[in-house]
Amino acid sequence: MKVAILGGTGDQGFGLSLRFAKNHEVIIGSRKKEKAEDAAEKVRNILKEKGIDANVIGLENKDAAKEGDVVILSLPYEYTISTIKELKDVLDGKIVVSIGVPLATAIGDKATRPLLPPQGSVAEMVQEKLKNSKVVSAFQNISSKALEDLDNPVECDVLVCGDDEEAKKVVMELAEEIEGVRAIDCGELEMSRIIEVITPLLIKLNIKHKLKGAGIRITGI
Amino acid sequence: MKVAILGGTGDQGFGLSLRFAKNHEVIIGSRKKEKAEDAAEKVRNILKEKGIDANVIGLENKDAAKEGDVVILSLPYEYTISTIKELKDVLDGKIVVSIGVPLATAIGDKATRPLLPPQGSVAEMVQEKLKNSKVVSAFQNISSKALEDLDNPVECDVLVCGDDEEAKKVVMELAEEIEGVRAIDCGELEMSRIIEVITPLLIKLNIKHKLKGAGIRITGI
Repeated sequence: MKVAILGGTGDQGFGLSLRFAKNHEVIIGSRKKEKAEDAAEKVRNILKEKGIDANVIGLENKDAAKEGDVVILSLPYEYTISTIKELKDVLDGKIVVSIGVPLATAIGDKATRPLLPPQGSVAEMVQEKLKNSKVVSAFQNISSKALEDLDNPVECDVLVCGDDEEAKKVVMELAEEIEGVRAIDCGELEMSRIIEVITPLLIKLNIKHKLKGAGIRITGI
Repeated sequence: MKVAILGGTGDQGFGLSLRFAKNHEVIIGSRKKEKAEDAAEKVRNILKEKGIDANVIGLENKDAAKEGDVVILSLPYEYTISTIKELKDVLDGKIVVSIGVPLATAIGDKATRPLLPPQGSVAEMVQEKLKNSKVVSAFQNISSKALEDLDNPVECDVLVCGDDEEAKKVVMELAEEIEGVRAIDCGELEMSRIIEVITPLLIKLNIKHKLKGAGIRITGI
């Protein structure tokens, strides 16, 4: 499967690239092709040290979006709409994974505070702009530091929601390829309103308790 | 310590009564004294079967509030303000524990959807009405069914937040008396905005996956 990660040069996107490049062709997207190529090279080198010959390339966001079977949006909240509105046609019919979190940093406030978009969640905002894409929400609560630490499993659950059952299943399977991760089906896309705001709580815990990367597990399931 | 649980005849309050009555004097509060007394008798009988001679009584909410050193508000969201506004003087200076969740059932919608109060969270709404009380937010994400199952530990974390550090410490210690529970300090009272909305997600998981009582654990801490 070809996995495109738009904004894949950022922490979260980079961590996901590292994990997905073990099994898939990964296309890192960025506003500038050069930055994307640098990140792709970094991923290849890190995996080479682990004895993995990964197929990772870097492209401009639009070209990356064209290539991907699954397209992950790893974009800052405040640049999400401006980035995807130019990709509407390219993303038509595709599985688009929204991993964005509505942090109040978008308006210069704290990362420990959510700032909800009018649509209720980033994922619903994305679905509104990409009417013909199959938007799935996932990976918001997984620590980028844990993703980058390839020597250890990522000890957390990935909460997944979306309105297209088949697309959701594809993303859940992708999530469970990450060692240690359990994917949990949380239902419709609107559940992303809750899933997304858990991240500022985890950021708070990271700061308050000096943690590397807090995550969550659901008990009783 | 005397622990008063207003609305202690409801599921969540009743479950907490059972757990706290092992170590503390518990006063169950209700709108009607008779209902409170019935619930208190039920708690005493259940614990008696486990060989515990518990000190549990039932009183009207106001009298229960007077008695408690710590007063837990186990009230339906939509009746919270009307109940506590008559208790302002009684609760002056006391530790008040907000366990309420802003469920959309308050307006006849689903329990899987949050409906935030203007103050941002139920705990902040309570603090606004009880200016001189030390409001601590806790116990929202702990399953009443797990609490009632005295033969097994409650496998979850209790997320605690509040602006009074000492009051928060008291509530965290109380939480950790419940076997299996780990209390996690999540910072200021405003963090309750996130903690409270996790509950409708857990309700969703209970329904979707036919669970007895989902909970959460923080990983990496």
